[in-house]
This record gives sequence, C-alpha cells and structure tokens, in this order.
Amino acid sequence: MIAKHFSGLTGQGGVALGIGDDAALINTSPNQQLVVASDTLVEGVHFPSTASGKQIATRALCVNLSDMAAMGAQPRWFTLALTLPKKKANSLWLADFSAGIAEIAQQFDIALVGGDTTSGPLTVSITMLGEAPAGKSLQRAGAGVGDTVFVTGTLGDGAAGLKSISSINSINSDSERLLHRFYAPRPQVEIGLRLRGIASACIDISDGLIADLGHICQSSGVAASIYQEQLPVAADVKKLAPDHFINWALFGGDDYQLCFTVGADKLATVEQWISRAELDASKIGIIQASSDSNNLVTVLDQDNNPIAINKQGYDHFG
Amino acid sequence: MIAKHFSGLTGQGGVALGIGDDAALINTSPNQQLVVASDTLVEGVHFPSTASGKQIATRALCVNLSDMAAMGAQPRWFTLALTLPKKKANSLWLADFSAGIAEIAQQFDIALVGGDTTSGPLTVSITMLGEAPAGKSLQRAGAGVGDTVFVTGTLGDGAAGLKSISSINSINSDSERLLHRFYAPRPQVEIGLRLRGIASACIDISDGLIADLGHICQSSGVAASIYQEQLPVAADVKKLAPDHFINWALFGGDDYQLCFTVGADKLATVEQWISRAELDASKIGIIQASSDSNNLVTVLDQDNNPIAINKQGYDHFG
Repeated sequence: MIAKHFSGLTGQGGVALGIGDDAALINTSPNQQLVVASDTLVEGVHFPSTASGKQIATRALCVNLSDMAAMGAQPRWFTLALTLPKKKANSLWLADFSAGIAEIAQQFDIALVGGDTTSGPLTVSITMLGEAPAGKSLQRAGAGVGDTVFVTGTLGDGAAGLKSISSINSINSDSERLLHRFYAPRPQVEIGLRLRGIASACIDISDGLIADLGHICQSSGVAASIYQEQLPVAADVKKLAPDHFINWALFGGDDYQLCFTVGADKLATVEQWISRAELDASKIGIIQASSDSNNLVTVLDQDNNPIAINKQGYDHFG
Repeated sequence: MIAKHFSGLTGQGGVALGIGDDAALINTSPNQQLVVASDTLVEGVHFPSTASGKQIATRALCVNLSDMAAMGAQPRWFTLALTLPKKKANSLWLADFSAGIAEIAQQFDIALVGGDTTSGPLTVSITMLGEAPAGKSLQRAGAGVGDTVFVTGTLGDGAAGLKSISSINSINSDSERLLHRFYAPRPQVEIGLRLRGIASACIDISDGLIADLGHICQSSGVAASIYQEQLPVAADVKKLAPDHFINWALFGGDDYQLCFTVGADKLATVEQWISRAELDASKIGIIQASSDSNNLVTVLDQDNNPIAINKQGYDHFG
C-alpha cells in the first residue's frame, strides 16, 4: 500500500533502493550503504491484548531485525515510537517493556538512538538502521531461472505459536517453545551476513512462504516450484495439527526465517555449509521461467503434481 | 520517559549523541554525522478527529522536520509508519494523505525510504534522517551565562490555531492563517542551517517556550530570564485572546519556532542579520547562573519584576 500511494517520493538524492523491498538503501559514503527498515505492531492486530510488555518489546525488535537479516545488513541503531494507553503508562509495565528491549538490543549489539512515548492505543513502531558494504546487500530481485530455493530453520512455528496463545488452556512444554517463537522469533542476522555474495535473492518470511517467495518471483520476473515433502516443519508443530501443519508452513506468517535463492555457481558452497551443519537451511524448490503472473508459486506433491492452493498470505486490508 | 527507562541502551558504537536531545547523532563517516529523530502523532491526542488526511500528513512531516531544524541538520530521508482504521483505508483518504506528504517532501527535498501501513487506531509515526558536518550540529547543551536568548517568528500561533479548530463556528480570514499554522507549521530548517557555528544552544518549541527553554537550561546547567514585553506575538493572536495571549506565548505548544542562545562573540552577527531582515527572530531574554533547579526560567514584567508562573508546558502522562 505504501508502495502504491507513495511511489513518486523515493527518487531523491542518495537513495540506492527505495520502498518495496525489506529495507531501503541509502548511500552515506562511497563504500557503505545505510539500510533502513520500519515496522509497526498494533495491539489486537499483530499481538493479542494478553501479551506482556516484554513479549511485545522482544517481538517488535525481532521483527525489525529480521528485515536487516533479509537484506544481509549488520543492524546498528534503532528508534522506538511507543504509543501507550494511560492504564499501561506505569513504571511496572514500562520496566517490563524496557527489559525486553534491553535483552534483544544487547544480544544483537544495537543502540537505541531516539524515539518518543505518546498516549493512545498500544502501538510500537520501530525504525531499524543497519549498514552494508556498497552493492553487497541482499534484495528480492535477482533470482534467476534454474536457481535453487532454500529456507532457514522450520516453517509454521509462528502460526502454531499464535494458535497456542489463543488456546491458552492447552499450554504444555511443547507450546512453551512455540510461544517463545511467536514473541521472540530469532532474527537470522548471522545467516543474512553469511549469504552476502552467495544468495541471488533473499526475503524474510513474515507474510507466509507462498506470499513472500511470490514477492521474490515478482521482483525477479520469475516463477517458483516448491516440493511439499521437503518443507521443514518441527515435530511439535506436526503433533499440534497433524491435518493442518502444511497450511501453516505455506501460509502461516510470522516465521521470520529467510527464504533465499542460490545460482548454480554457488550451490555447492551452500550445500557444503548445510552438510557440515554450519547453515541451518533446507532446499525446498527451484526457480523457473514465469508464464502466469497470477500464479507465481506452485506447490508440488511427492509425484510432482501441482497441489491446488487458494489461500494467499496475509495482506493488511487485502 | 524514553530517556528514563532506556538510558542504558544508547552507549554502543558510533553514537555521538544519544536520546534526550531533539535528535540523535551517529558517526557514519569521518566528516559527516547522521541526525535521527522520531515523532508520533495520535488521533485525539495530537490532532482532532476532524483533521483531514492531508492536514495530518503535513503536520506529521513538519513536526519531524522541525527537529532537524533544531539540530541545524539538513533533512534528507524519512520513514513513515501509518496505522489506519478500516473506515479510512480507502483510496480517497490515502490520496489526500499522500498529497500532503508529497507537498512537504517536495518542498524540503526529502525522500521517503520506507514504512508500512497497518490496521488500527489512526497513528502516524515518522523517523527523519538528516545530515550535518561532524561536530557542527546544534544541541540543547551549550548555553553559557551571559548568552542572549532569541526566538524565531511569533509565539502562540499553535495554541491559537488549536483554539480556532475547537471553535469552528468563529472561523474567519484570521483564523485561516492560524489553522494553517497548526496543521502545517513551517519548520525553520533554513534558520537552523544558518545558526550552525553561531548559536550556543538550540531547541524547537513544541512543548511551549517555558518548557523548551527550560530544557536548554537543564542540559546546559544554567537558568534564563525572559522579558514578557519582548515576546513576539502576532496581531491576530492578540485580537483572538486579548487577556490570554501571553499564556499561549509562554505555555502553548506546537509553535515549532526555534529558541536559541547566542554568546557575546556572535551577538553582533545575529543582530545584524535581524536588522537587515535576513533573520526573522527576536531577542527575548538572557542566560544566567542557575541557583534553583526547580525554577530555571523566570519571566519578568516591564519593571523587571518576576511574574508568578505556575503552569508548566505539556508533558505526556505528566
């Protein structure tokens, strides 16, 4: 929506990559680019009203760090705009919230450089600033026909975590892990840095695999086929929803894993990293020529037959 | 509030000036600093629910540009986080809103480099990025005993504009000007750039003169006396509230003028600019040694007697 209504406003000085990717790139010196991303979380839309201050804080920061990971950027600084209803504007809630911010900020060595607190409905808006050597960042555009598609970690954890929150009575040791995956999804910053110069395209999975791989395809002018059997899904997610976990893996948002493509020349490197357990990623599909712009991502069953899919990833106001 | 709860999080690499001023300073290259400021506007708190999309947009951008002006920074890029209730998420409202963003962005030659749109209560959060030569930006700290206090433009326009909005039936040609001053306060970016190397301290007046000059005093470890007779107030503001305009000038927020201090060595330069009409500013007071940290700013009447003041500038949750 931002891209549609504001596309005329990004052409000015120093902007190397405008809106429409996970972050924008700004030329700040001949060798370095500033990487800028913004994400807003609203109570009742992006987290339930039962979430604690710390849970909201860690999730907000992790979501924004994930954008840096998708760009192959080193996160450095962030601003925080916190809108808070009067009933939560007390020292106890704020101490809990700031503990969450502090935990993630220290873990990723990023500095808070500004922000404000206003009174109103609970909303957290973060702008993250990172750095990347000029021309080395990862982007959505760049996937070529024949490239291999990978995802990091496991898929469906975010959707399963959200399910665990809404059925609070069924919490057990398994769903503790999933709750944590929802509120503090681990941003794959290290992997993003490692993929510089290796991946031909990259995105973080916030809207669901189908939607986000679709964004890579759209930006790159290609299509993709993925193999259902090869989708990495954690055992506890399969157990939680034996009939439904594939849907979570394909369409469930909030995983904050990376989906990336690799050309033939770099494929052996990535496969070696995976076999040595230096890189937690799975090969899930292949990039093909695009023939139908309304159907960019095809899911294949074990006999290589297309599976009908009709639910697109979550789109605000979509 | 941000400064109190998050003060431990600003010490990391490259941060030259952390939270607590109008913006933060980051060292991005040996000669340049990145200047970062964030401001959030919430419906019902920072603008009335009758405001149009364009009015909200221009006000949000101007408020953030004013932070750049206060730092003597050249604004360059911004991110926009727009939270929008479903009833306003239509093309008409968004076209109006984006027209406001475009108007101000083009006027100040700044580029939109990121942002997102989420569903929820109407909130606009902007992070503005600017540049300043290393060590040349203006800050709150730096005012010295004997320095002269100036303000740009006129005071009380913001409060009078807000009053005009709430008494809609009394709109006339005068209050048209005040409405415009509320929704599109002119950020004093040019003056901020001119004051680099001239002003000893600077702030923009968003919380009211008494509160914001108090911030300069607190950061600089000094006090200030201002002369009520010398406060610049526009004729239409005096006419609108003959008994009350001094209160608006002292405590009314939302003026977005600059308040700055000038040492003896630069005073002749500034006075010459003013006399040649190259600088729209008024001399309103003097910096003194601080004796009482609870009473940093004293207002004097025409006989140099202190006037009792008891209403502090607006403080969220204060």
